[in-house]
Amino acid sequence: VTNDRARRLGAALAAANLGWAVLTDYDAVAHATDLDVPIDIGPLFQVGGPDVTVLDADGATTLVVPDIRRAAAQRCRADEVVVYETSHDGASPEALLRTVTETLDRVGVRGRVGVQPASLPYALGCWLAEHGAEPVGVDDVLRAVRLVKDAEELDRLRRCAELTSAAQRRALTATRPGVTELAAFAEIALEWEIPFAGRTAVTGDFLSGVERTAGVLGRPTDRMMCPGDPVIVDLAPRVGNYWGDSANTLFLGEPDAAFRRMHTAVRDALHRGIEAIRPGWTAGQADELIRAEVRAAGYDYPHHTGHSVGTASHEFPCIRPGAEAVLVEDMVLLLEPGAYRPESGGVRLEWMFHLTADGLVPLSSFDHVLSGRNT
Amino acid sequence: VTNDRARRLGAALAAANLGWAVLTDYDAVAHATDLDVPIDIGPLFQVGGPDVTVLDADGATTLVVPDIRRAAAQRCRADEVVVYETSHDGASPEALLRTVTETLDRVGVRGRVGVQPASLPYALGCWLAEHGAEPVGVDDVLRAVRLVKDAEELDRLRRCAELTSAAQRRALTATRPGVTELAAFAEIALEWEIPFAGRTAVTGDFLSGVERTAGVLGRPTDRMMCPGDPVIVDLAPRVGNYWGDSANTLFLGEPDAAFRRMHTAVRDALHRGIEAIRPGWTAGQADELIRAEVRAAGYDYPHHTGHSVGTASHEFPCIRPGAEAVLVEDMVLLLEPGAYRPESGGVRLEWMFHLTADGLVPLSSFDHVLSGRNT
Repeated sequence: VTNDRARRLGAALAAANLGWAVLTDYDAVAHATDLDVPIDIGPLFQVGGPDVTVLDADGATTLVVPDIRRAAAQRCRADEVVVYETSHDGASPEALLRTVTETLDRVGVRGRVGVQPASLPYALGCWLAEHGAEPVGVDDVLRAVRLVKDAEELDRLRRCAELTSAAQRRALTATRPGVTELAAFAEIALEWEIPFAGRTAVTGDFLSGVERTAGVLGRPTDRMMCPGDPVIVDLAPRVGNYWGDSANTLFLGEPDAAFRRMHTAVRDALHRGIEAIRPGWTAGQADELIRAEVRAAGYDYPHHTGHSVGTASHEFPCIRPGAEAVLVEDMVLLLEPGAYRPESGGVRLEWMFHLTADGLVPLSSFDHVLSGRNT
Repeated sequence: VTNDRARRLGAALAAANLGWAVLTDYDAVAHATDLDVPIDIGPLFQVGGPDVTVLDADGATTLVVPDIRRAAAQRCRADEVVVYETSHDGASPEALLRTVTETLDRVGVRGRVGVQPASLPYALGCWLAEHGAEPVGVDDVLRAVRLVKDAEELDRLRRCAELTSAAQRRALTATRPGVTELAAFAEIALEWEIPFAGRTAVTGDFLSGVERTAGVLGRPTDRMMCPGDPVIVDLAPRVGNYWGDSANTLFLGEPDAAFRRMHTAVRDALHRGIEAIRPGWTAGQADELIRAEVRAAGYDYPHHTGHSVGTASHEFPCIRPGAEAVLVEDMVLLLEPGAYRPESGGVRLEWMFHLTADGLVPLSSFDHVLSGRNT
């Protein structure tokens, strides 16, 4: 076993009195094996089931994939790769289920086995239960390992933050009157697609105009941007197996004093958080500090203040009111306070951070300037 | 029950002696309820499980979704929508599993229940088995309903074909020396994204140059296109709940006689198929006719000759050697013969068709011209 991350996962299984885990969520498989699978064409492209990783308590991994992912599987860190033939006739999970159960049988999975109850195929769970295994939910065990990032993960996430920042800088010029949100977004996305050499999954929001920005959420549409528009550019691309995230608020033209005040309030709240938050705080305390700043200025936001990120775009912990999770060194966190007013539109400002013993170190490198060009 | 498609599914359940089905594949949920869910941000965005449709033998549908999909669910045709609260802490399927099991209990699911064994969460299957239900694989039953398209589905698929054709016409000018594959692809994708008013999932291939086109498969990369490149543009966007598909082969500059011969061979084979194929043929016969034409010209292709399409990009039947499925009226089919040579590159030409009593009626409206501008 040469895969340190899988070894740490295996140790966590052992500590939870689990001899094995069967991983079926794409982000858990990516975290454990580094299998690079595009997710932007849907969960069930041509074949009827998830890629499956069998992990033992020593961190040894066996990955089961369809033939169309053979090359990606051979490049990843799984200790063993088992390939089954792709179905060309739409969903027909027989080959998947047969190949995984043969693998489970051959490697000798039994006893207490960690499983992901929302994505473990029913047929696999039944096979385990009928073959001397006791399926036990493992999501909490995985979460505890994943909330701290290792050096390699920090490098990956730093790259995600850099590419996302380059895209935010591009947004300053791509976002202009007379262009649709979608066309601007396509231009912006090339900032990470070309370095990654491929199209990627991307979530977040692209909102122009008072009504859409005041509405908080929404992906880019055919709306043509106009002079006087506020624009929220929230970019969360998946570059390789890890996700970046970021938000900036632009203004097409000169914002009035009311909008500037709103922008300043959000920026000040974000920076108050950056200065104060340290390992040992709870996620709820971090939320409270930043949210209180925004509220003291007379605004509010109907969403969390931030979240962790990794092979999923939103990971534990969420920085939200009352969250009891303790922030620890080597988490990678997003902070994203906002302010929304039906008559003025919305502001959201988000950066990505590495939490160190000394506090939050920004991984994002773009500026939260309200207008002007800083490319 | 006002949903004709769900009513036909319900009748098929009854004919298979099933009182209920629990649908968990995204394409089955889309087909039964018309729930419009973006799939291009991955299978497990922020929540730990699939959207679930409970269908009875009368065609009544109950849809269970997280709160972030409430609006989409309320726009769809499910007779009842049940919403659970989104988790903000990464995968935590408890709310999904609790809400679905409460729903199964309330509507009285028991007896023989059709399930999709690769995507039915293990926890749900266990609940069913412990509460008087017998889970039975239902994929074959769904497949038999889905292989024939109703009038509304034909309209949807016609629109997919039209938008895909517009994108293929745009490819004639977007595909040029000095532009990366990714930048050309971004420009082309706007042809369906702007009418759809959103980014979509898209699969297929974008291959430039001799080496990449000879390699058959691959999504757009950072490769800069050059004079003398063959370019395979295979576009399969998901516009709403249905997929389009198409392929054209372009050439940047003047192709030599060898490449023209290859292109002509593929085009002639495709048109031979268009003229001959009728309802009643097996998929294998259709494959054989077209493949034999390509082989007679001295070429071959290492992939299927075509496939059906609907709420999944590849549906049953696949048109491949030996396939015994019989082609019937009101299927929507792709035919996509090709020719690949390491020294010259590759050609693939694909159109979308409605199979009528009189034969294949093209839904695609772009030309398979090897070079020149036809926009």
